[in-house]
Amino acid sequence: MSPPFMREAVALAIENVQTGRGGPFAALVVKGNDVVARGTNLVTSANDPTAHAEVMAIRRACTALGSFQLTGCDLYTTCEPCPMCLGAIYWARLDRVFFASTRHDAADAGFDDAFLYDELTKALADRTIPMIPLLPTEGDRAFAAWREYEGRVEY
Amino acid sequence: MSPPFMREAVALAIENVQTGRGGPFAALVVKGNDVVARGTNLVTSANDPTAHAEVMAIRRACTALGSFQLTGCDLYTTCEPCPMCLGAIYWARLDRVFFASTRHDAADAGFDDAFLYDELTKALADRTIPMIPLLPTEGDRAFAAWREYEGRVEY
Repeated sequence: MSPPFMREAVALAIENVQTGRGGPFAALVVKGNDVVARGTNLVTSANDPTAHAEVMAIRRACTALGSFQLTGCDLYTTCEPCPMCLGAIYWARLDRVFFASTRHDAADAGFDDAFLYDELTKALADRTIPMIPLLPTEGDRAFAAWREYEGRVEY
Repeated sequence: MSPPFMREAVALAIENVQTGRGGPFAALVVKGNDVVARGTNLVTSANDPTAHAEVMAIRRACTALGSFQLTGCDLYTTCEPCPMCLGAIYWARLDRVFFASTRHDAADAGFDDAFLYDELTKALADRTIPMIPLLPTEGDRAFAAWREYEGRVEY
């Protein structure tokens, strides 16, 4: 746990706001004592709703390391990750996450993080965005192709 | 609800596996009768753990429409979205999601989707990836900068 990495992330988040690039969030991927990659929220400037700070830092760290996994790395993020970013953190197999503000602080500032955590735990039929099953048997064909493909790279 | 869009998505997912580009998943963003963008899972070929089919389709649709929101669009995806993709769907403000296979089908094929849904509902201290608070007061400075910045674009 290294406070200086978090202070750098907070400084990046403030700069990100003041330069009009996006929301007040930044994140660093750290391996040992080295910063592998930095990310800030670029949603509105990049027209990319997935361009949250953690996702940007993870993408860049994977590019830097030439890997789709970040085992052995930590993430320092200025705010508790939203469900999208938390999913990305698990898929990237990061070791640990350090965060400053919480989902409730984010909600107070007008962001949907806490709402999203609530939505995820609801039954599909109770969510505000309808999720509707369609052709479930067809979907199995894709998994069958996966099981049959000898060159598959698991992740 | 249009079965042909789902059939196209399934065909794309199978092609994605058989060409070695990634996992057995594909998604389409549809507006009215038109496909705005297509995405397939490129995690292992692009070294990007966030390159799930839904995320790719959302990113490309936003680029195509020049917007960070997809209000008025539907998503057709070959499998129930994982928490990362579900978060992306909410941030993108899609209208509806149609899916074929379920998170349990994905788990049977070796993917962590169901596990991730379980992790998200746990208290921070009980998760397999430790999430550790650090310098919470510092984090508030980024939100303060956001509240003070008159040019902010909310999302």
